[in-house]
Amino acid sequence: MAHAFKNCSNLMVTGASRGLGLQIVESLVTGGFSPGKIIATARNPDGAKELQMLAEEHQNIHIIKLDVTCQESIERAASEVEQLVQEAGLNCLINNAGINVVANLETVTADKMLENFHTNSVAPLMITKAMLPLLKRAAAKGTGMGIHRAAVINMTSLLGSVELYWGDRADTFKWYPYRTSKSALNMVTRCLAVDLEADGILCMALHPGWVRTDMGGPEAPLSPEESISCVLSVIGGLTEKDHGSFLHYTGEQLPW
Amino acid sequence: MAHAFKNCSNLMVTGASRGLGLQIVESLVTGGFSPGKIIATARNPDGAKELQMLAEEHQNIHIIKLDVTCQESIERAASEVEQLVQEAGLNCLINNAGINVVANLETVTADKMLENFHTNSVAPLMITKAMLPLLKRAAAKGTGMGIHRAAVINMTSLLGSVELYWGDRADTFKWYPYRTSKSALNMVTRCLAVDLEADGILCMALHPGWVRTDMGGPEAPLSPEESISCVLSVIGGLTEKDHGSFLHYTGEQLPW
Ligand SMILES: NC(=O)c1ccc[n+]([C@@H]2O[C@H](COP(=O)([O-])OP(=O)(O)OC[C@H]3O[C@@H](n4cnc5c(N)ncnc54)[C@H](OP(=O)(O)O)[C@@H]3O)[C@@H](O)[C@H]2O)c1
Ligand SMILES: NC(=O)c1ccc[n+]([C@@H]2O[C@H](COP(=O)([O-])OP(=O)(O)OC[C@H]3O[C@@H](n4cnc5c(N)ncnc54)[C@H](OP(=O)(O)O)[C@@H]3O)[C@@H](O)[C@H]2O)c1
Repeated sequence: MAHAFKNCSNLMVTGASRGLGLQIVESLVTGGFSPGKIIATARNPDGAKELQMLAEEHQNIHIIKLDVTCQESIERAASEVEQLVQEAGLNCLINNAGINVVANLETVTADKMLENFHTNSVAPLMITKAMLPLLKRAAAKGTGMGIHRAAVINMTSLLGSVELYWGDRADTFKWYPYRTSKSALNMVTRCLAVDLEADGILCMALHPGWVRTDMGGPEAPLSPEESISCVLSVIGGLTEKDHGSFLHYTGEQLPW
Repeated sequence: MAHAFKNCSNLMVTGASRGLGLQIVESLVTGGFSPGKIIATARNPDGAKELQMLAEEHQNIHIIKLDVTCQESIERAASEVEQLVQEAGLNCLINNAGINVVANLETVTADKMLENFHTNSVAPLMITKAMLPLLKRAAAKGTGMGIHRAAVINMTSLLGSVELYWGDRADTFKWYPYRTSKSALNMVTRCLAVDLEADGILCMALHPGWVRTDMGGPEAPLSPEESISCVLSVIGGLTEKDHGSFLHYTGEQLPW
């Protein structure tokens, strides 16, 4: 389904300095069916050496500075994105930037809960709001639903599934801030799906698998390449039936 | 099941100045099967006239000052509760205090999301943590699960169900901060349920129905008396099978 991206004029991904965000950019440009413009955001572009190198090799990568927790930064980024996409609008927004403020019942504090919630749940909402005029512009030109028109993909986690956190699965990763932030992101996604349906903008939440990044750690079973190959295949194949859904990187539906 | 409360020595409810919290206190003392001590917390006890009047009539009501978003206040309340319950510990904690920071997609801001999350999702977690030694003390004396031993009840909402916010149900109450905070509270409840199971402390999330309080408004179908009569019946009847669950005030299970 990676060829679906050739019907996607403009795509934006947050947190592209490293990990899955960087891999999304790399897999898109090396996959042979690259979108028109890839807007890769980083909170500190100067420190994002690998992304800089990729952008030097590929003219369709545009790096923009964005701290996802800062409203001023979001608004500045939105006007820079508008300059880049112009009348075509934005076809795909991938809210990928995220943190894991590790804390169990003993070590959790209100501040840790609020910090993780701000980055993982509130930021995707505020970024989507800021990009809405550009998503609507792209959506106005198409029919059906998918990245050929306009889509918002929120990188969530299986660890945000309340249903699955029980029985055998309840032994590990007792991370209050992270789990709670991803459950909250799932509700944000659903709220956006309800509100953006009339504009023809697809919204969904996607679990990328457990991946060997700085966040996922060295024990994770998937390489970033493996994860993102599946992730892009799922994103490329999204249609009406996936609107408002919570999908595994293999394409299966997950319970909330 | 209201008679089950006679096997509950000490119960605490937050946000008892008005609305459902006040009604819980009133229904318990007038129901004929009152718990030993009812610890009713209010952020501003002096302003809680109805609660004060109830406490003058019923010696087993103890009013304690508690702003649920303030850690210092939580810790001070915990030591006051300890003085009251002593060796018996705390059998039932009802995290009821909550707010609805009304905002739709157009009006939502990061601050509104954070404020609602702090009161509705983080505060129940931090209060439960602070009361844990007292809940464990009570749990150590019993067997099985329920309010005769130790239980944490989080007042959540149907509006926090991601699953149910779709199709026909997606027409009204497009409240980002409130919905998200209750989904997050559901995950907090589940995390607590996983962690407190070994201590025999039951944890669950309960939807009280749509009720005519300041929050519910005059259009709501249920009176506070009707809602709390059902709520107390559900709480009184909780057993092992309800641990980690999300229940409607009628006792039915709700999807996350
Ligand atoms: N790896 C896994 O196993 C796994 C599993 C499930 C879900 N996920 C989700 O997938 C997404 C990507 O994870 P990852 O494994 O790639 O994590 P990662 O290696 O830790 O990278 C996180 C990325 O997010 C960025 N970021 C964090 N806070 C930011 C902020 N305030 N402003 C801008 N950017 C910010 C980081 O930028 P800096 O370089 O500036 O810090 C970095 O680019 C996350 O949402 C994560 O929760 C990952
Ligand atoms: N009413 C409904 O239809 C409905 C439906 C579903 C769920 N619920 C949930 O049920 C619970 C009670 O709702 P309600 O209808 O009784 O609401 P309410 O009438 O607005 O009363 C809210 C209570 O919470 C207290 N509170 C708020 N913030 C606080 C803080 N920071 N510290 C201490 N206390 C605080 C208030 O105290 P002050 O008097 O000091 O403000 C008041 O006692 C809430 O969690 C609500 O989300 C209600």
